[in-house]
Amino acid sequence: MKVEYINPFLVSTISVFDTMLNCKLERGVPYLKNGTQPQHEVSGVIGLSGKAQGTVVLTLSREAALSATEALLQERPTEINGDVTDAIGELVNIIAGNAKAKLEHLDMSVSLPTVITGKNHCIEFPSKVTPICIPFTSAWGDVTVEVGLREVKAAVTVAAEAH
Amino acid sequence: MKVEYINPFLVSTISVFDTMLNCKLERGVPYLKNGTQPQHEVSGVIGLSGKAQGTVVLTLSREAALSATEALLQERPTEINGDVTDAIGELVNIIAGNAKAKLEHLDMSVSLPTVITGKNHCIEFPSKVTPICIPFTSAWGDVTVEVGLREVKAAVTVAAEAH
Repeated sequence: MKVEYINPFLVSTISVFDTMLNCKLERGVPYLKNGTQPQHEVSGVIGLSGKAQGTVVLTLSREAALSATEALLQERPTEINGDVTDAIGELVNIIAGNAKAKLEHLDMSVSLPTVITGKNHCIEFPSKVTPICIPFTSAWGDVTVEVGLREVKAAVTVAAEAH
Repeated sequence: MKVEYINPFLVSTISVFDTMLNCKLERGVPYLKNGTQPQHEVSGVIGLSGKAQGTVVLTLSREAALSATEALLQERPTEINGDVTDAIGELVNIIAGNAKAKLEHLDMSVSLPTVITGKNHCIEFPSKVTPICIPFTSAWGDVTVEVGLREVKAAVTVAAEAH
């Protein structure tokens, strides 16, 4: 995965948290996802397809997920419920949407988001893809964005279309 | 979600398990996903985008995931490892690829698969989408396919592009 593809996701995440949630994220050092590590308790997942295929994961601590939902809805959920999963799905949708607009030459479109909940769930990418993780800290707790993206070669597209 | 969109996923799942894994699936009665229910222990997730946006989830019991990997690799994994997540990611990729070919008018392409592992993880779709679950039984244990799909209106596409 090309390093220059990471920056749009990093910038988009910081911008969406700032403008939509009024939450300042402090970025840590991006690293390659390596081996199986549990995600935080709530993870939004969305697919990208076009001249590159990808997946974006926004994973948050329970506290960060509840606080993000509170910031959007002006009401604090008492548990991880449908409001929280809708909020986190919408956040990953907007983060991916903003980033893809900055990667216009890849002509990507987004799928529907899904939101994974559960302590110690793991999200694995295909082994031929090396996703990059961008850790952030915030007043609400930890937030990490993981992006795995690979360019689709023309021949592969033709083969995939033949299914 | 239109009911006629379900059949290609149902047929594709049965066909892929039969031809690639030599495993006969017996289908149960499809139902609307309603509320939060934990998935089986291993779930492959892939996004679809085009004139419809969607997500397909293939969720399997631990035993079914291990047996499916054994059928593909001719060697039984001793635990849920990278071979298993690669195998389940590839299965959901092929199931979604075959189904989208039968829904040609929706002009969809697939994203990268991811695979979720962990006991009692839940996968939530956006509340505006009602995913349909297709349960299957097999000699290996339970397998369920969940499909959430919604058509993208032209105006929505333009708005999304404006991000």
